[in-house]
Amino acid sequence: MAQGSAEDRLIARYFKPLAKHPGAFDFSDDAAAITPPARHDLVLKTDGLIAGVHFFTDDPAEGVGRKALRVNLSDLAAKGAAPLGFLLAIALPKDFSEHWLADFVRGLGEDADAYACPLLGGDTDSTPGPISISVAAFGTVPTGTMVRRSGARPGDHVFVSGAIGDAALGLRVRRGELADTTGHLVSRYRVPQPRTTLAEPLRAHASAAMDVSDGLVSDLGKLCRASNVSADLEVARVPRSEAAEAALGSDCELIKPILTGGEDYEILCTIPPNRIASFESAAANVGVPVTDIGRIVGGDPPPRFLNPEGQPLTFLRGGYSHF
Amino acid sequence: MAQGSAEDRLIARYFKPLAKHPGAFDFSDDAAAITPPARHDLVLKTDGLIAGVHFFTDDPAEGVGRKALRVNLSDLAAKGAAPLGFLLAIALPKDFSEHWLADFVRGLGEDADAYACPLLGGDTDSTPGPISISVAAFGTVPTGTMVRRSGARPGDHVFVSGAIGDAALGLRVRRGELADTTGHLVSRYRVPQPRTTLAEPLRAHASAAMDVSDGLVSDLGKLCRASNVSADLEVARVPRSEAAEAALGSDCELIKPILTGGEDYEILCTIPPNRIASFESAAANVGVPVTDIGRIVGGDPPPRFLNPEGQPLTFLRGGYSHF
Repeated sequence: MAQGSAEDRLIARYFKPLAKHPGAFDFSDDAAAITPPARHDLVLKTDGLIAGVHFFTDDPAEGVGRKALRVNLSDLAAKGAAPLGFLLAIALPKDFSEHWLADFVRGLGEDADAYACPLLGGDTDSTPGPISISVAAFGTVPTGTMVRRSGARPGDHVFVSGAIGDAALGLRVRRGELADTTGHLVSRYRVPQPRTTLAEPLRAHASAAMDVSDGLVSDLGKLCRASNVSADLEVARVPRSEAAEAALGSDCELIKPILTGGEDYEILCTIPPNRIASFESAAANVGVPVTDIGRIVGGDPPPRFLNPEGQPLTFLRGGYSHF
Repeated sequence: MAQGSAEDRLIARYFKPLAKHPGAFDFSDDAAAITPPARHDLVLKTDGLIAGVHFFTDDPAEGVGRKALRVNLSDLAAKGAAPLGFLLAIALPKDFSEHWLADFVRGLGEDADAYACPLLGGDTDSTPGPISISVAAFGTVPTGTMVRRSGARPGDHVFVSGAIGDAALGLRVRRGELADTTGHLVSRYRVPQPRTTLAEPLRAHASAAMDVSDGLVSDLGKLCRASNVSADLEVARVPRSEAAEAALGSDCELIKPILTGGEDYEILCTIPPNRIASFESAAANVGVPVTDIGRIVGGDPPPRFLNPEGQPLTFLRGGYSHF
């Protein structure tokens, strides 16, 4: 970052306006400094996006900026954490478009404000490869209260927030494999809605929680393995949007991509029976729909996804793997 | 990360052995949780390496693993911070070599142990581009004591640790442009030596500090701009290794790449006159050589690098820029 270099200019023009936290020092120092709240733990998460892997190169850059932060905010919410701030590492091809960067930073900055999660520092590199974005996000919980994957017990009810499957169907729409007259499915694929307001209700009532990023089947399997339990789910109770219902109406085979597709960024959690009423009330108070989709049971994973006849579905693949 | 997927297997095989901090939860949860020490600030830094940009694709992977962490540890040290832990985001081509990954993780894990900076979590992706590694590192300082770039005052002496220019010359050796019979220069390019033990002496005595990553000329310029001062340096006093002296002996034009080349990962700091003896003593106690190379003066940057005749050198470029 030589004075007057193109790199300096990029940082000054596009990133410095996002340096609103005093501990970011206007990005003019080597590192950021923040004073964490007393008697709290830090919750730490990193997740990234790569062009051609996690988004299409012609997806609107503003949405890419939002998604880069939101996929991390979704994890913080699932762990019961309040956002504290984030670091951004971005690698750009030498011939990158400044229009793209301006739009990316606008979306990112608006979300940093909206979610009270300020940019604290970053790293800007050139790459011979595709645009690569890595966010490291930090949140806080009162000491010892991070909501784990491992606390589910037999008898707990399994809840999910919002609707499942929109993003997976949106990806199919984006590829031209499916119609979506409303645009709802593609918008859910491009810009997830992290359930940040559910963090406190989860910390108060959930025995276990995680966000659904790799697909409901895969992620419930992980939660069950971490908790040494299994689960019985009723597929018909898995909440779907109107747009997903419309797509499913024309092709009932789409139920499997809905359950395994991933990128839902909804909350999957388990609630002990005596906390269900309180959890549902707290979720309603913050305006997040939650749906009871099944039960934690004893035994070994994988959990069973039961059709209306009570028969378990079989899945060739449970969720997304990069390799 | 589906159960039994190749991605799961990679994480279990290569990264889980590095999950030694209890708050990493064996990488079996969505996020890490750590309890920061009371009455301390967190110091946050992210810096990355991209194959073909920051290292050669045939550089030993073990050294790449070390360098990925060390470039961040160098920043933490310059800010006076003790390491707390780090997050790793790594993107690998689909046809990556498992030998490469095993070596990378070995170097990274050994350094995480050696520098007491545990891996807390990560993100593993595939990429159509080159191997890309992003580290977000966290350190701690007593509240309000992070050493800034902005505290230098006229009359302060300018110090650097170790020797300057080895890595820049090592890069030339690596490219076949220069001979290096001892291997010292290339090893300094490949595996920097972060001055972590200098963190406390800096916090105790330095008015300003940063690490030298983009070249001494560029980085001193940044420190001066942040402090609203300038500096007069004597080029002959800039410490050089025997290997750099040998190279310089054959080509006195190499003095400019030594001063501008970057990747030294030494500490550049300013010390008020009444703290010099204490600083030198504290540095000697932790075994880090430090050299007084000039003075902070009033006026506007850029600082002047004076030759033995007292004439300032001119530089076409001050340091590394990615764009």
